[in-house]
Amino acid sequence: MTHDVNVALLPRIARQTDSKVLVVVMDGLGGVIDPASPTALERAKKPNFDAWAKEGALGRYVPIAPGITPGSGPGHFSIFGYDPLGLEVGRGVLETLGLGIDVSPGDVTARANFATAAADGRLLDRRAGRIATEEATPLARALAAAVPAVDGVRIEIHPGLQHRFALVLRGAGLCDAVGDTDPQAEGVPSLAPAPLTPAAERTARVVAEFLRRAHAFLAGQTKANHVLLRGFSGRPAMPTLAERAHLRPVAIAAYPAYLGVARLLGMDVEPGVSPKSTVADEVTALEKAWKKPYDFYFLHVKGTDSAGEDGDEDRKARVIEELDRELPRIRALAPDVVLVTGDHSTPGPLKAHSWHPVPFLLHGRWVEPDEQTRFDERACAAGRYGSWFPALSLMPVVLACAGKLAKFGA
Amino acid sequence: MTHDVNVALLPRIARQTDSKVLVVVMDGLGGVIDPASPTALERAKKPNFDAWAKEGALGRYVPIAPGITPGSGPGHFSIFGYDPLGLEVGRGVLETLGLGIDVSPGDVTARANFATAAADGRLLDRRAGRIATEEATPLARALAAAVPAVDGVRIEIHPGLQHRFALVLRGAGLCDAVGDTDPQAEGVPSLAPAPLTPAAERTARVVAEFLRRAHAFLAGQTKANHVLLRGFSGRPAMPTLAERAHLRPVAIAAYPAYLGVARLLGMDVEPGVSPKSTVADEVTALEKAWKKPYDFYFLHVKGTDSAGEDGDEDRKARVIEELDRELPRIRALAPDVVLVTGDHSTPGPLKAHSWHPVPFLLHGRWVEPDEQTRFDERACAAGRYGSWFPALSLMPVVLACAGKLAKFGA
Repeated sequence: MTHDVNVALLPRIARQTDSKVLVVVMDGLGGVIDPASPTALERAKKPNFDAWAKEGALGRYVPIAPGITPGSGPGHFSIFGYDPLGLEVGRGVLETLGLGIDVSPGDVTARANFATAAADGRLLDRRAGRIATEEATPLARALAAAVPAVDGVRIEIHPGLQHRFALVLRGAGLCDAVGDTDPQAEGVPSLAPAPLTPAAERTARVVAEFLRRAHAFLAGQTKANHVLLRGFSGRPAMPTLAERAHLRPVAIAAYPAYLGVARLLGMDVEPGVSPKSTVADEVTALEKAWKKPYDFYFLHVKGTDSAGEDGDEDRKARVIEELDRELPRIRALAPDVVLVTGDHSTPGPLKAHSWHPVPFLLHGRWVEPDEQTRFDERACAAGRYGSWFPALSLMPVVLACAGKLAKFGA
Repeated sequence: MTHDVNVALLPRIARQTDSKVLVVVMDGLGGVIDPASPTALERAKKPNFDAWAKEGALGRYVPIAPGITPGSGPGHFSIFGYDPLGLEVGRGVLETLGLGIDVSPGDVTARANFATAAADGRLLDRRAGRIATEEATPLARALAAAVPAVDGVRIEIHPGLQHRFALVLRGAGLCDAVGDTDPQAEGVPSLAPAPLTPAAERTARVVAEFLRRAHAFLAGQTKANHVLLRGFSGRPAMPTLAERAHLRPVAIAAYPAYLGVARLLGMDVEPGVSPKSTVADEVTALEKAWKKPYDFYFLHVKGTDSAGEDGDEDRKARVIEELDRELPRIRALAPDVVLVTGDHSTPGPLKAHSWHPVPFLLHGRWVEPDEQTRFDERACAAGRYGSWFPALSLMPVVLACAGKLAKFGA
């Protein structure tokens, strides 16, 4: 029997209630405690977060294990109580689901780029000069019409932003163990789609034939004359949040990968948000969703991670301040339990995701407050939950604080 | 799937880099926090360790589980990320490998002592009066020549210090499940080598015949007329640090058991160190090794444990001070990450290994400093990592701080 209570106990003890939980994920929120360089949370003026911190309890959680840096997928899954070590969720399926395209068990998806290749096959630009969405979308639709199927396998092409699109293969006997064709470098040709297991041989042949026909179709294009594929993946088998904890969840998120996570967990998606939305727009969508019969709200803010990746702690602080200004509107909704955190740390000085524990703030009637009065890494490390709280314990605590878990055993 | 990330993730995410990691193990370093009796770390004047403590982060780790006292083998394996509960590594194979003797899968080794027995077989001295190495070595070589094989099994005898030698059996169908012949007491006869499983019956017969011939050969000796065997063991199957984490490791250690651990993990051994070496000699060997293309350095200091076993906290403090005086030379090497710790606690008042969490100090660019300013048990308990950090998380954190782990998942 597993000792992960999300798996072993939640389906037995979770009960549906009217209480409403809000989980706010500021992507890449955490920084590195460093006397020489304040973190974005330390730089930001955020009186509303700090007021919540004073009333609630703080800590830092470990997404996977100490020292392990999570990608965005594993980071989010662990917050929601899904052990990332037991899941292999490809980026292809996350992005495809995030575009609102259904992916069923047995389908195979990949992330695709339009690219520019020279006559001899060498890649000149892996992103086709970041071709405009307005130009790329009709081209993707024409390509879809030109290659609707290969060898009995249905081929779907779903346009994304700029050079990006999602490829979906639907048919019997497919296998996602196919290697990337994107060499992740320019000046070299793209790779042939390689079967990584014998079971994937037919799928790799179908992909190769698709690419042959696609390149023939695109031959007249000056920029987008080539297709690169990566992240071949299928839909993993996992219980939804409704199956696991009788929740009625909804997501407010702007980017496909996070909507993909939400859809895999069976969340509805509140409309009205796009990558062009402001944080205030997202909170407006949250307000709309609040009137609906959901009891679990996931609000994702992307800007913190992008700023961290760029090494810009000041910009990251401004994103935190932007959300802080909207907190009075969120408080007015009177959520029963609020968890504010990140899906991983992205310290500006490191300019990348990191393994450092992720700060979190928990607020609610049954949360034991600590002595901390502001929301930042140092306060979280000194807070109620310390620096080494396991990610998979967040959901049980959040649901318990919301009165959604019955006792275990007589 | 295992949740030990050393096994499940490191082989996938570890990457070779130029950064250099130093792990300093002061054997049996930890003491017991006790208002009535300061620990050796509290007694020692160690300005250089304290300076590192101020810049870095402290904690105490749990070698196996709270309450479990490790031997030296399990203690070391856990620091290096090898779960001791999944490994049974006998003292025989550690000592034999430590003498520089190769042990292949299928071989069986044992630790051997020359001893003194009376005519009726009762043991008079389990160590043959601690016979001098100069006297014991030629005797061991003569014994080896007298009994080169038994029943098709090759017999090797490798002299150690004083009365100690290593016995190695090489041949087909051997099994290490043989009981000790050393009764761990004097005034009683030695034990017959007992097969602990049916598969070990032939091995036990070979050992019994070897002992019969050895005792006949030694009959004329006054001191060393008997042989005692213990710790029958074979080489366990385990990945090297190169296989697990793409490391290029080297060990600086004076005693065979620790060199045995190092060799099992695939470490090279830097020459120039012996049980007669001072701590300064070991640091000189470290300096030499630093010029070579290694990226993982294991420096072992024995004296702390021996002093703890003798109940002499002041002597233990002096060993710590001896290393502290050499730290400026180590700092001059500019290691990217340093871990200073013990393989277990050996509190002087207990005069034995103990289960108490083991103090550690972590230093490096991406280590989040805490508020602690000296390196001792109390400061470590109040430090960033607390008193209950799992040993198996040390390696992932150390490698992450050295930039040697890529992220997990998209």
